[in-house]
Parts: sequence; C-alpha cells; structure tokens
Amino acid sequence: MTTPFKITPAAPAAIPWRSAPEDRAGAVLTVDLKALVENWRILRARAKPGCDVGAVVKADGYGLGAEQVGRALAGAGCQTFYVAHLDGAAALRRAVGPGPRIACLNGPNRGTERDFVAHRIMPVLSTPEHVKAWCAFALTEEVLLESIVQIDTGMNRLGLSPNEFAALMDDADGFLGLHPQMLMSHLACADTPDHPMNREQLTRFIPALSRFRARFPDAKGSLANSGGMLLGHEWQFDYGRPGIALYGSHPQPGHSRNPMLPVAYLKARIIQVRRVDTPGHVGYGAAAKVGEGAKLATVSMGYADGFLRTLSNVGTGYLDGIPVPVTGRVSMDLITFDVSNVPDSAAQPGGFIDILGANLTVDDVAAKAGTIGYEILTALGRRFHRRYLPASG
Amino acid sequence: MTTPFKITPAAPAAIPWRSAPEDRAGAVLTVDLKALVENWRILRARAKPGCDVGAVVKADGYGLGAEQVGRALAGAGCQTFYVAHLDGAAALRRAVGPGPRIACLNGPNRGTERDFVAHRIMPVLSTPEHVKAWCAFALTEEVLLESIVQIDTGMNRLGLSPNEFAALMDDADGFLGLHPQMLMSHLACADTPDHPMNREQLTRFIPALSRFRARFPDAKGSLANSGGMLLGHEWQFDYGRPGIALYGSHPQPGHSRNPMLPVAYLKARIIQVRRVDTPGHVGYGAAAKVGEGAKLATVSMGYADGFLRTLSNVGTGYLDGIPVPVTGRVSMDLITFDVSNVPDSAAQPGGFIDILGANLTVDDVAAKAGTIGYEILTALGRRFHRRYLPASG
Repeated sequence: MTTPFKITPAAPAAIPWRSAPEDRAGAVLTVDLKALVENWRILRARAKPGCDVGAVVKADGYGLGAEQVGRALAGAGCQTFYVAHLDGAAALRRAVGPGPRIACLNGPNRGTERDFVAHRIMPVLSTPEHVKAWCAFALTEEVLLESIVQIDTGMNRLGLSPNEFAALMDDADGFLGLHPQMLMSHLACADTPDHPMNREQLTRFIPALSRFRARFPDAKGSLANSGGMLLGHEWQFDYGRPGIALYGSHPQPGHSRNPMLPVAYLKARIIQVRRVDTPGHVGYGAAAKVGEGAKLATVSMGYADGFLRTLSNVGTGYLDGIPVPVTGRVSMDLITFDVSNVPDSAAQPGGFIDILGANLTVDDVAAKAGTIGYEILTALGRRFHRRYLPASG
Repeated sequence: MTTPFKITPAAPAAIPWRSAPEDRAGAVLTVDLKALVENWRILRARAKPGCDVGAVVKADGYGLGAEQVGRALAGAGCQTFYVAHLDGAAALRRAVGPGPRIACLNGPNRGTERDFVAHRIMPVLSTPEHVKAWCAFALTEEVLLESIVQIDTGMNRLGLSPNEFAALMDDADGFLGLHPQMLMSHLACADTPDHPMNREQLTRFIPALSRFRARFPDAKGSLANSGGMLLGHEWQFDYGRPGIALYGSHPQPGHSRNPMLPVAYLKARIIQVRRVDTPGHVGYGAAAKVGEGAKLATVSMGYADGFLRTLSNVGTGYLDGIPVPVTGRVSMDLITFDVSNVPDSAAQPGGFIDILGANLTVDDVAAKAGTIGYEILTALGRRFHRRYLPASG
C-alpha cells in the first residue's frame, strides 16, 4: 500500500491520543453514583432496625463498574458487599480498602483457600465439599476461618440441601474450624410479592437458622435480595443483599411504581442520517421495509455492545425527546432507527440517540427485548466511554 | 466483624495470587488459533487469484480477543484487518505492528483525524460529512490521506446513498486531498445464497466501482463478507472481508455443510451436584419442575458471562459426552443443568460442563437461543479464564 503520509515508527503504544475518549467512542454510558447511593438509602429506610443493608456488586456491579459502585457505596456507609467470583472480590477489596466485609457467593474453588484469606474474602459455602475443604484448611492453618453457609430452601440452585444441612448439623465436627458469620438462603420468586414460594422459603429458613444459631450463637441470618427487602421485615433478618434495585431496576416489576431512581444513561452516536430516495429494505436479511422519504439514522453501537439482537425491529430509542423505533435487524456494531418524525435540525450525524435514560428505563428496554433489566445491565459493552457522576458534591 | 485470622495490611494490590487463574475462574474459554488460521486459509483457497483476503476483527475479534486473533492471522500472512472503532484499531496496530493495513469501519468521528494518521488507520468514509471532514483535514495537512469510501447498494444501513455518491463524483473537488484505496459496500443477505438481493447489490456495485476507478485508477473494490466470499468469484473483487467464518461459524447456515473449523471451546465449572430428595422447582420464578431422584448440576457461569437468558429451559451442555439440558431460568452467575443421565463418577463438583465445543457449535447454541452465532460469540464474557492454543507448533 502506498503511504503518502509519514508512517509512525516503532513503539506505537507510546503514541498519545490527540482526541478525547468521549469523542472517539461510539456510545457514552453515564453512571449516576448519587442516584445509586440514594437507592441504597431508600432500601435501608425500608429495612428493619439493625438489619445490615449491603450491596451485591457481582458481574462488575451489574455492568456499571464494581469498583466505582463499591467505592461510592462504601463511602456512604455500606459495610457488606457480595460478589460472585474470587477475582472480582479481590479487585473490590483493592477498591474499597480493608474495612468492608466482602462475600464471594460462588464459593471457594479447590486450591484457592489461601487467596480468600489473603484478600480477606468470606466464602459462601454451599456444598458439603465446600464445607469439608474449608474445614480441612482451617485445621491445617490452626485458625478459625470466617465463612457464610448457604442452604437451599426450595430454589434447587445452590446451597446445602435439607438432608446435607441436617447431616452436617448432626455431626459435632461437621463445621470444625469454621467461624460462620451468616446462614443464608436465596429467594426464587421475590420479584412476585404474592407468590406462595416466598412464604414457603421463609418457613423453611426460620427453623434452620434457629438450629444453626444453637451451634453458632453469633451467626446472623440473610435471606432477602432486592425483592425480598420489599417483601417486608419478616424476610430481612440481619443481612439484606439487594442488587438490582441499587442499579435502578424495579425489583418487583408490575406490582407497584418503581421506587428506585435510574442510574444508567446510555446514548449512541449517530454516524449517518439518510433520506431514503427509493423504497427498499433496511439491514441484514432485508428484514424491514422502508418507503420513499423515510429518514433513517444509523448509530455506532450494536449487539456487541449489549443492545440485544432481540430488539431488532422492536426496540426504541429517543432522539431529542422523540421516540424513534429500531428498524431492521440490530447489527454487531450498528443499529438503524427510523427518525422520520424528528426534525432535520435534531437528526444530525455526530448527535446522539438515547438508548437508556429517564424516559427509557432499563426495565422498558428489557420488556421489549423479552428479558429482565438484569440482563440489559450485565450485557452493557466494554467499548463505551464511561462517565461517572460523583456520589457527593 | 471479628477476624480470627490476621488481616492483611494495606496495599492489597500487591498481594500475589497463590492459585492459578484457571483454578479461580468459573469458566474456561479455549481459542484454537490454529483452527482460526486454517479457516482463513480455507477462505483464501476459495478466493479468486489476486483477491486480498483480510480479516474482520471488530468487537474484540468477535469476542475471542482481537489482539491474539490479529497476531495469529498477521503471522500467517493476512495483510488487511477491519475493526469498527478507532480505539480497537489502535490496539490492533500495537498488536500486529506497522505492516498490515487496518481499516476502521465505523469511520472517523469529528476531531479524531490526527489519531487515525498517528496510528495509520484507514477510515471508512460512509457519509458526505465524513468525506468533507477528511478532505478538509487533508487540505490543512497538505498531504494525500488514505481512506476507504463506502457506498450503500441497498442495505440502507451505512454508506453513501446513490445520490450522495453521484453528487461527490460530479464534483471535481468532491474528494480533493483523498487517496482512496478502496470502494466498498456491504451485502445484506449473503448468508442466503439464493436471495435476489445478492445479485441486486452486485449489479449496483459494479458501475459505481467503474466510475470510481475512472477518477482513482488505483482504487480497489470490496463487497464480500464471509457469506459473500462463498457466493463466488463474482462477488469477491479485490478485497475480501470475512469475519464470522474465521471464528468457525457457518456463514451460510442451513445451505451446506459448514466448511469452517470450530475455534471456540467453552466449559463451565460445576459448583454443586444435587440429588433432589423432594419434588419441587428449579431457579428463579420456579419456572421448571423437578422430580424426586433427579440429579442437578449448577455451574459457575450465567447470563452475565454471555450465556443468553433465552437459553433458559432450552439450552444444552455436554458432560462427559452426554447432552445435559438447562433446567430452569439462567441466572446472572449460575446455570443449572439436569444431569440425571450422567453417571455419578462423571458428575462431580470441580468438573466441567461443555458449553461450546466440537459437538456443540456456536451455531447450535445460537439456534437454541433464537439468534445467530455472531451474538453468541460477541456476548462471551470477561470473567472467563482464556487459553490460546498457538497458531503454529
């Protein structure tokens, strides 16, 4: 290839950017840490006295950045964090410092015990193998090891079964070497307040906790996720573990007005605005028709950025406050919107179409995509420019 | 919280890991770079003589790692890469060195021109505004600037419309200062060989290319994505731009045996194996029933890792060569499989369930999820441990 301008020589890693990250990005994600902290306070206000309201920040803080989210909440007084994996737990420990408790929900893989101790992460022990391995490590180290024990109360996903829990409790040495802080279980249907499963699980949890406390008088109980916090004091016990509500999604969609504030704002850059001069089709598979005179805007974002492909032909954006429908299939790096209703002055290349915002919530997008707000958040891409609005000030 | 073991003091960032990344991870993604290179060679063998067969490595190399993919293909002789965004282009430049061409498909955002030049990235100019800005920059810099011009031939997604292209060609100064290497367009329906759109787009592209070459005799043509490469020599022109086929997905699914080799292998770690002792339900919403005696395995991976939630109750894994269905809803960090058909000796905590592999291709999973292989790949998570099998040796 001929190269009419000077080729930059070696070590291109050292080339400084001349343009701002926001100007280079195809989309800009703004995370309102003040709203996040306010959501945590809203949940705390609903908690019974003495209940420690923590924060679930797994999956990189539901896609919004576990370190930034963790620092903001720790700054506001949150004392307990829950992550899924050890690597995320250690990264969070670096972010929030030595003070807060950090629990690792997916438990300790074999051979990782020393790393849990080094970063002071509490493993959630959900299986007889977890308990056995953690006890063996405690005995080797000759210390009492902190931990959380999880029992299953009907979700059949993770946690000691009733029989497994009973066998360990029947064995005087079943937890030898452990110093469990917490007995926890997880609600399957807390997003549906009137689901009978909620009380069934509560009814199973209470006697198990009593039995556990007879052995470990200091141990606390934890049952409530976001939905569980809203079910009422009965479900809250000592440690609340809200996740999705912190990020602004409604923990019990359809059952009341969403009490949470929006936290995530996403806008995608318009690359091209096109006035269609001959009727035809839009996008892959020619799956959408477009008539003469229609005005289309294509943005620099796609399903590789987490705009789920199920939003093809059904998703919506907002441009200058006007709803604009997705037309055709969502591409990997591009989405085309029909902006025929938007004045030319507002529909210009270089402008932005709102993808998530005050009038287009995570739950709205989830409903159109046939999924839940959780997946909309955790799918958020890595190519966005990310802005964090500070928690205070 | 009481802390019976010694708290590690400040600077936890400096704490070295005692366990291997693979042992800490919930899932392991293996990328077979040798198969990737072989796929590139298969496509090259189908290309007409003189056609430069490049590689589309946008969206972080379709989720598999643009830098590793780029280095492997550059090592095999691939001379042209296509990415979506400038940041990805610059990262790829660092990975592949100064030799290969790198094109930025989503074009130059305003104000980023100097960065394109500094990293020697060719912008794809798809709009009159792109052309105008790039020409203005060229005139300011008093150099001829490399670029690619994209026209729309019926997809109505990105590229100069016929009228816009004609207007620029009619203007003797329309491309003043540019040194276009390529005129490109994009096929909407190349995954369906008998779709009439394929020939329609070809029929529009040929005269546009002739006209462009009358002005820029050195300029080459580029129309074919992966599917287009398989449509035949007529569609290939000078630069082929395969993407999905390199990564092992069938570029024309359902129309022939997949000629590509699998590249991605993904396995998720079993946390718990549970023998159900009382009939009940599995997972969120109690959306799946489970009978007494069923055996369930829960793995340390979920939709936050790209196992799309649409796979709830319909996805499949493989354990020890035996298909195991997803039971219940996919959770953010956990998936439960029914492993009743697998012997206890094979279904053990610490073992792995295959999520993608030789007998469970990207296209198989996509079909169950109601999407395309592209989205399965680009959704792949960031929490996996990633292993790269070398391209040679």
